[in-house]
Amino acid sequence: MAEPGTIDRPSYGMVGGGPGAFIGDVHRKAIALDGSARLLAGCFSRHHEGTLETGRSLGLDPQRLYRTFEEMAAAEAARDDGIDFVVIVTPNASHHPAAKAFLSRGIHVVCDKPLTLEISEAEELAALARRNDLLFCTTYTYTGYPAVKHARAMVAAGELGEIRFVNAEYAQEWLATPLERDGKHKQAAWRGDPAQTGIVNAVGDIGTHVENLVRTVTGLRIGYLSARLDTLVPGRRLDDNATVLVDYEGGARGVYWVSQVAIGRDNALRLRVFGSKGSLEWSQEDPDHLQVSMLGRPSERLSRGRDPFHPGAQRHSRIPAGHPEGYFEAFANVYRAFTAALRKKLAGKALAGEDLDFPGIEDGISGVRFIHRCVESSSRGSARVSF
Amino acid sequence: MAEPGTIDRPSYGMVGGGPGAFIGDVHRKAIALDGSARLLAGCFSRHHEGTLETGRSLGLDPQRLYRTFEEMAAAEAARDDGIDFVVIVTPNASHHPAAKAFLSRGIHVVCDKPLTLEISEAEELAALARRNDLLFCTTYTYTGYPAVKHARAMVAAGELGEIRFVNAEYAQEWLATPLERDGKHKQAAWRGDPAQTGIVNAVGDIGTHVENLVRTVTGLRIGYLSARLDTLVPGRRLDDNATVLVDYEGGARGVYWVSQVAIGRDNALRLRVFGSKGSLEWSQEDPDHLQVSMLGRPSERLSRGRDPFHPGAQRHSRIPAGHPEGYFEAFANVYRAFTAALRKKLAGKALAGEDLDFPGIEDGISGVRFIHRCVESSSRGSARVSF
Amino acid sequence: MAEPGTIDRPSYGMVGGGPGAFIGDVHRKAIALDGSARLLAGCFSRHHEGTLETGRSLGLDPQRLYRTFEEMAAAEAARDDGIDFVVIVTPNASHHPAAKAFLSRGIHVVCDKPLTLEISEAEELAALARRNDLLFCTTYTYTGYPAVKHARAMVAAGELGEIRFVNAEYAQEWLATPLERDGKHKQAAWRGDPAQTGIVNAVGDIGTHVENLVRTVTGLRIGYLSARLDTLVPGRRLDDNATVLVDYEGGARGVYWVSQVAIGRDNALRLRVFGSKGSLEWSQEDPDHLQVSMLGRPSERLSRGRDPFHPGAQRHSRIPAGHPEGYFEAFANVYRAFTAALRKKLAGKALAGEDLDFPGIEDGISGVRFIHRCVESSSRGSARVSF
Amino acid sequence: MAEPGTIDRPSYGMVGGGPGAFIGDVHRKAIALDGSARLLAGCFSRHHEGTLETGRSLGLDPQRLYRTFEEMAAAEAARDDGIDFVVIVTPNASHHPAAKAFLSRGIHVVCDKPLTLEISEAEELAALARRNDLLFCTTYTYTGYPAVKHARAMVAAGELGEIRFVNAEYAQEWLATPLERDGKHKQAAWRGDPAQTGIVNAVGDIGTHVENLVRTVTGLRIGYLSARLDTLVPGRRLDDNATVLVDYEGGARGVYWVSQVAIGRDNALRLRVFGSKGSLEWSQEDPDHLQVSMLGRPSERLSRGRDPFHPGAQRHSRIPAGHPEGYFEAFANVYRAFTAALRKKLAGKALAGEDLDFPGIEDGISGVRFIHRCVESSSRGSARVSF
Repeated sequence: MAEPGTIDRPSYGMVGGGPGAFIGDVHRKAIALDGSARLLAGCFSRHHEGTLETGRSLGLDPQRLYRTFEEMAAAEAARDDGIDFVVIVTPNASHHPAAKAFLSRGIHVVCDKPLTLEISEAEELAALARRNDLLFCTTYTYTGYPAVKHARAMVAAGELGEIRFVNAEYAQEWLATPLERDGKHKQAAWRGDPAQTGIVNAVGDIGTHVENLVRTVTGLRIGYLSARLDTLVPGRRLDDNATVLVDYEGGARGVYWVSQVAIGRDNALRLRVFGSKGSLEWSQEDPDHLQVSMLGRPSERLSRGRDPFHPGAQRHSRIPAGHPEGYFEAFANVYRAFTAALRKKLAGKALAGEDLDFPGIEDGISGVRFIHRCVESSSRGSARVSF
Repeated sequence: MAEPGTIDRPSYGMVGGGPGAFIGDVHRKAIALDGSARLLAGCFSRHHEGTLETGRSLGLDPQRLYRTFEEMAAAEAARDDGIDFVVIVTPNASHHPAAKAFLSRGIHVVCDKPLTLEISEAEELAALARRNDLLFCTTYTYTGYPAVKHARAMVAAGELGEIRFVNAEYAQEWLATPLERDGKHKQAAWRGDPAQTGIVNAVGDIGTHVENLVRTVTGLRIGYLSARLDTLVPGRRLDDNATVLVDYEGGARGVYWVSQVAIGRDNALRLRVFGSKGSLEWSQEDPDHLQVSMLGRPSERLSRGRDPFHPGAQRHSRIPAGHPEGYFEAFANVYRAFTAALRKKLAGKALAGEDLDFPGIEDGISGVRFIHRCVESSSRGSARVSF
Repeated sequence: MAEPGTIDRPSYGMVGGGPGAFIGDVHRKAIALDGSARLLAGCFSRHHEGTLETGRSLGLDPQRLYRTFEEMAAAEAARDDGIDFVVIVTPNASHHPAAKAFLSRGIHVVCDKPLTLEISEAEELAALARRNDLLFCTTYTYTGYPAVKHARAMVAAGELGEIRFVNAEYAQEWLATPLERDGKHKQAAWRGDPAQTGIVNAVGDIGTHVENLVRTVTGLRIGYLSARLDTLVPGRRLDDNATVLVDYEGGARGVYWVSQVAIGRDNALRLRVFGSKGSLEWSQEDPDHLQVSMLGRPSERLSRGRDPFHPGAQRHSRIPAGHPEGYFEAFANVYRAFTAALRKKLAGKALAGEDLDFPGIEDGISGVRFIHRCVESSSRGSARVSF
Repeated sequence: MAEPGTIDRPSYGMVGGGPGAFIGDVHRKAIALDGSARLLAGCFSRHHEGTLETGRSLGLDPQRLYRTFEEMAAAEAARDDGIDFVVIVTPNASHHPAAKAFLSRGIHVVCDKPLTLEISEAEELAALARRNDLLFCTTYTYTGYPAVKHARAMVAAGELGEIRFVNAEYAQEWLATPLERDGKHKQAAWRGDPAQTGIVNAVGDIGTHVENLVRTVTGLRIGYLSARLDTLVPGRRLDDNATVLVDYEGGARGVYWVSQVAIGRDNALRLRVFGSKGSLEWSQEDPDHLQVSMLGRPSERLSRGRDPFHPGAQRHSRIPAGHPEGYFEAFANVYRAFTAALRKKLAGKALAGEDLDFPGIEDGISGVRFIHRCVESSSRGSARVSF
């Protein structure tokens, strides 16, 4: 088998991503696009038949298809040619035990968001990764877009001046009806079930993307927040809409809105950042462009690949301006950065800050904290709570 | 002089709108577009020279140019050919005394928003108008757009189902710098001065437009709100940005955001209404179009003048689809509806509800209440307050 | 600046614009918006009852409502207080005799486009106007938009470099069905009738707008053209779609496309101009904005009213950025410029080039020539013909 | 469904795509995304060092890195485990000899466009492929987008009625300056050199994409055309802009415009198709959406993944609506369809028409014919020539 970058690329295993799952295949394709890593092992399903079926279709060695993630962690850690890292793409409730199993065995981890159900669980993983000197990536995909990197670079360079206000939102239509009730829609079913998804639905699934996107682009840290979680479809068990007033450390303010009942919206994650000198706006559904407005000037529409796109953002691109890159490429960028750091680490080299250009465990912890603070505030009449 | 509709059109006078003012001239042009009324009298400025200068340029009879609005109200009420109605376009603080003067003399009133500084003042005007059987229009211009009428008709007909969430915003750039400080910008100066503008700036100037637009389109009434008023430009005396969480009576929720420090935005009033069957979106800067999305269907872009534009909305238009109508036409629609009602009233006919298709005094009162409730909530740490 | 009631504003009469007509009322409203002139006389319809009805509704003196335009020209020329100018808004075939009647009597003329049926007729009017020292305006409305003025200023200042290519189009849906056949649609009926409209339909009605817009913005003069006129709705008598390859003097090239069978398009006039340093794009349906792209830079979206809008363009505006101006305001700008020049002329002052900032008789002649050259080329298999 | 590591996936070799080349790596990544095939052999460069370097970086067996494509065709044909197909991504002039070499040896071919320099060469390849019963794919990438498939399905189902007019364009900025002259830009240099690129530049590079896109979506066949090829940058040797009037068989008309000097445009391929019942519009830079307008109705914006997206189009997608797919996915769709057909063929099964859902050799021939007819017409003063 020969793929771009083959020779020294790391190997990985996957937990989750079996038959009927959505996101696991996306991770695999995103890794394959750049040939960032080789898939060698898996525990794709809670049902071993599912794991075998997926493993077969992927051409994996049956010896490396496991019944449980614990078994997989133990067996792979014991092999000379064991996997370098694991990708965890199960429902939220299993993230913590799975990640812990691999970290404990010295295997690097990539884990889906939201990272864990409890803040303490996320902090435990962080401590474990640190102790065992392991890399940890939380797949906040949307920060992989080159335009998001450019936005971050603009803010960091002070091009927008002092940041004053952030307006971020993430609107979807898909839960505008009680889709989770008929049981046929696998994702709606587990996301609507507190046992699998945790204390929130929309705030965890898409709210944490908003929180992470703002955190990444602006570098701002939340000081206080006031949240109102809504259940707008009658009979639903968890939130499907939420609005959060955010006070950042340092005086900037923000508002976040997330909704899964917003008819007409596919996956409308949008960010607007206003500073004292200028502003920027980005929409995930048109990811290659970025609107930038400087005080008193006409708005500009930046294209990935066209000046003045920041070189540090541009290197996350593969093709010229006007040839759209999308969600897979954003995902692939996360893996390209993670595996580059991993190769360096495996080669025994020291990692610098710029090597860690992927969402890490601190991002994961912040997301879990965001969930808990929103629930706390909302349950107290949208009281202003400390972050 | 001959204009469309000349013969039976009512006559009016104006308070405010002298040299250097902005909105007075807009009112006059909007009235002239359709020839809805004839300007016969004025007290355009606190400085009589200003009134004389403006009056001269408008070809008015010098006998009907007054030193004070009190004098004007008295003199015009005494004339056989006195004005039928007055248009009040002064800074906010004078709205109440001026409107009171004319209502007391039996003269119908059109007054700019926000209506008054105090809720009790607005209620007093309402009582006075009712007692003297006079029409009262509060010029919330943006509800004059045909697309807004269409949106209102859609909601009223239940086409969007049960309304669940409203996201409305109004963003401008013009106060992103401390423009009010150098004293050269007349409007910035008075709007930044609590003595003339009241206890709020952005919330009063543009926040009330948001409140009125939502109220008009959805018919929803606010039950509770939590507001955070921000002063994002250091040293400014009043708010220049605000976010408000709204709980409507009946269970729907909303969020309003207004900003005058949003670099890159000219006059970006935007409304999104989400129901159980569909949603709509409208942007004031592209007023002839309306985005409508029905559950599971592609979004539609309605054009004023193209099916299925509601006939009751379409009759507020003058030209075919694709020939843009704008701000003047929206303004003219308010006056066309007001003067049509007035002509009917002057002819001694009874007015039906549909004759009152212009923002009235209840809209004015609601706007003032909104201002006060926002201040109250914000000053108490964004506490949830009853409306 | 002209305001309602301004003392020294000129007076006008109108030929056409009676009951059921569309454009006459638009002219009257556009004039009224700024109070640019006073309507005093009319021959609104071929049926005197129609003229009387319209005259009455406009409050005109019955003495000045005429049976024929010849009678009107004679009578008004004989009065001391006769009209200063006439507005001709009849179907195309009567433009020439009507304009000739008034020019012959020393009355200034504003005439709708296309100016005449024959090139020689247009040239005769030009000679007559010159001989009698009269102003002549051909109402190519779309050049009245401030953004068009800005585009013209950019090209004139060389900001786009050498102009290389122009792509202009005007697409409408309204004749996608054989609307003219059932006789109920007054405008479709006369436009589809060669006796009233001339040798072309789409090319004359909207093609000449394209020709004029390009001519105005770029200053380019057509050297040669190759045209293909299509009748895409079976059974129609005249063209409803056309494409024209244009070779300008000096080496630039262009393509024009017009269609009245373009389903989904309301009134989609659009201009793109490409130079060696930059390009611009403007769409009539979003008239307050202009997209400007400079070599290697992100595209900018200029707003009327926001820097760097050219002052010479900005003075054609009445309200700040973000408060949309539309079709009436563009129309009003033509009249504001024409009547300003007329006032100067009536006051005996000399007119400079910049006073003539409205489409004149040369624009009218060019439009008629464009029609004839297109027909000539199309009838010869799209042969390249000299302009 | 094909996944990374799938056991039965075909193997391929590549000609071209060495150091400094652009498109070869795009092909490899697009194949890797879905794991559609395994790269086993290559002749990536005319310089063997280049081939070795690229081969090494891809982890290929050095035994299968060849000095010439002739050597590669012979050696691979002789191996038991020889490649199933070859991908040819060299400059245009070598397409014909390279494709011929592989077809002659019984190896299936994927070749970049424009297919050959001469029409007869393309026809020779077609005859050879037919004779040897080999699959042939011409990589007109843009037809791989799901939205293009949907557009094709709409037209085929008669949803737009009789097609009347097509307006298609492809505008880029990148050759707005004489980039090919300094020799540093590899692609500009070979594209500007008639020895490598043939008798046209823009018409061949992007014009044939337009021709193919229209052909694919509408099924219309060109009867006659009139073309004007322009060289708008002084001193350039080939065309950089062109406009073509197209008469289709059956009476529909069209206009194509392509430009590589259109400042502000990245890769603006756009298609508009107008029928008697409706129209559609698609822009490659926003590939997941499609604007559809039905007579008298508001325009709709279809999203890939949202109803009513045609199932036959939807199956070319991998992720839900709102998760952007782009250029790589379109490319991957071509390979997914090609390799699916190839697997079926290698398994000895008969191929049905629907198996050939990728651009074939007839598309390749049509493109070369388009180039030659454009040149012929343009050299004769844009004369109307038979296709």
